[in-house]
Amino acid sequence: MSILVVGSVAYDTIKSPSGSAEKILGGAATYFSLAASYFTDVRIIAVVGEDFDQDHVLRARKINIEGIQRAQGKTFHWGGEYGENLNEAKTNFTHLNVFQDFNPQIPAAYRDSEFLFLANIDPVLQRQVRSQMPDVKLVGGDTMNYWITGHRENLLETLRGIDILLINDTEAKMLASEPNLLRAANKVLGLGPKALVIKHGEYGATIFFREGWMGLGGSPFRAPALPLDEVKDPTGAGDSFAGGFMGYLASQGEVNKEVLKRAMFYGGVMGSFAVERFGPERLTQLTRDEIDARFQLFRELTHLS
Amino acid sequence: MSILVVGSVAYDTIKSPSGSAEKILGGAATYFSLAASYFTDVRIIAVVGEDFDQDHVLRARKINIEGIQRAQGKTFHWGGEYGENLNEAKTNFTHLNVFQDFNPQIPAAYRDSEFLFLANIDPVLQRQVRSQMPDVKLVGGDTMNYWITGHRENLLETLRGIDILLINDTEAKMLASEPNLLRAANKVLGLGPKALVIKHGEYGATIFFREGWMGLGGSPFRAPALPLDEVKDPTGAGDSFAGGFMGYLASQGEVNKEVLKRAMFYGGVMGSFAVERFGPERLTQLTRDEIDARFQLFRELTHLS
Repeated sequence: MSILVVGSVAYDTIKSPSGSAEKILGGAATYFSLAASYFTDVRIIAVVGEDFDQDHVLRARKINIEGIQRAQGKTFHWGGEYGENLNEAKTNFTHLNVFQDFNPQIPAAYRDSEFLFLANIDPVLQRQVRSQMPDVKLVGGDTMNYWITGHRENLLETLRGIDILLINDTEAKMLASEPNLLRAANKVLGLGPKALVIKHGEYGATIFFREGWMGLGGSPFRAPALPLDEVKDPTGAGDSFAGGFMGYLASQGEVNKEVLKRAMFYGGVMGSFAVERFGPERLTQLTRDEIDARFQLFRELTHLS
Repeated sequence: MSILVVGSVAYDTIKSPSGSAEKILGGAATYFSLAASYFTDVRIIAVVGEDFDQDHVLRARKINIEGIQRAQGKTFHWGGEYGENLNEAKTNFTHLNVFQDFNPQIPAAYRDSEFLFLANIDPVLQRQVRSQMPDVKLVGGDTMNYWITGHRENLLETLRGIDILLINDTEAKMLASEPNLLRAANKVLGLGPKALVIKHGEYGATIFFREGWMGLGGSPFRAPALPLDEVKDPTGAGDSFAGGFMGYLASQGEVNKEVLKRAMFYGGVMGSFAVERFGPERLTQLTRDEIDARFQLFRELTHLS
């Protein structure tokens, strides 16, 4: 089944302890699409400027880019750097450029998408897209501290239309105003989402289910992350997790507990590939065999016989 | 098989967001012994002062306390508090008292212990005990930042006599002078230990093996931790992990990869019980059925069918 993602396609300028890269392809929708493209058909809605010349990277992965608008001006450009704590980025600059006036339009050919992912953008825009896709089978979504603290009412309204929310520990605690992770998860599940994926960076991710959803019990499921000997650039790890997770779900006929558990592992796998190179480079040249081999490694990492 | 632990038996005064407790039973050897006592015979070497009146707690769990010396003066007393980040304690005071002149003596009846755990004390004392137990089957050990930075040479010599070192992420990175966890683990395995357990607090723990030890391959194993809805007092979680881990190992006839993996889960289980109450209270009143039920929960938490 095909998946539609709305979010940013951007340029990134990044420094990390492993080096630096200037004005490379970035953006949440980019990482998401590339990761998901190994599992299913992907369609993307975004806006870029006249300077954007990276369409070929997405096309090479057979991602449908009909929904990427080209606007007058420059492409969204983010600059950030990482210290030894690779879990925290310091933003050096955020040039929204054409992204400031982003008005998502859904091409007619995208209307039959069964899965929808609302990457981290203004919750008002997320809702606008969501409301135009009433028959979609499953909606995933992301957000960040900026919307949680500054646009809370808009975000809360948007959350009511999201089936599975994917955020990190800090965001979950902030959204719930609750420092305990399990209690925070339960509060977030009371805000609309039927499942909540909390990403723990290098420690993997946990999925929490609302009692009764699809007959699922209340017990959470955790997928570990493989310790890597080099993390070059953590940018996009969370979006790649979401791409692997949603892409795998969309590739399966039915969404049930076992499929959701496997999707958690595939999310971790795609996140772990993403950080091995600067930008999304590693995600452009994988094979399904490499992906499944790492899935097995992740599985063995915690498997008791 | 029986296990001998040397370390602190102390009083703790603790504040956390869930409350506070004054001058309650604490100390690394206390948490370790109580956790291990559900799996095997435990013998303890420590020193307490004339004010110590908690022997009955250890005796009730059938822990052999013949090796607890009673010295003139007061018992070691630590005061600390936790904020919302329960992974980090702020020390309010450390009254070493009789612990300052601790000179571990091994009672004759302890000499046949097959397993030895060197809890977090001066590496010179750890080595002194280790050298008097040349025929022990397996030696586990712990340490902390104070010894890593200020007593490095002593610690490095002690590490050569330790089979399995159990430390946390920060300590591993500090000991290896290496911010990447996998590379840090490999460096530590070059310092003596044949296996290294790195504890990740609420995210579980990972065991790394030296290539070739007991025919074990190089791939690590990770045991998750169950998200808990209340963490009252994180004090002793790491020592309880070590007690569950070493206790389970000692209870098995043979130490092989599958046994080590199960020991990692039992470590996590005992750590998770420890934090549910102030001090070691929860560890004094468990049943093996409760322990095995939580083991199953932990197992299901990451189990793919």
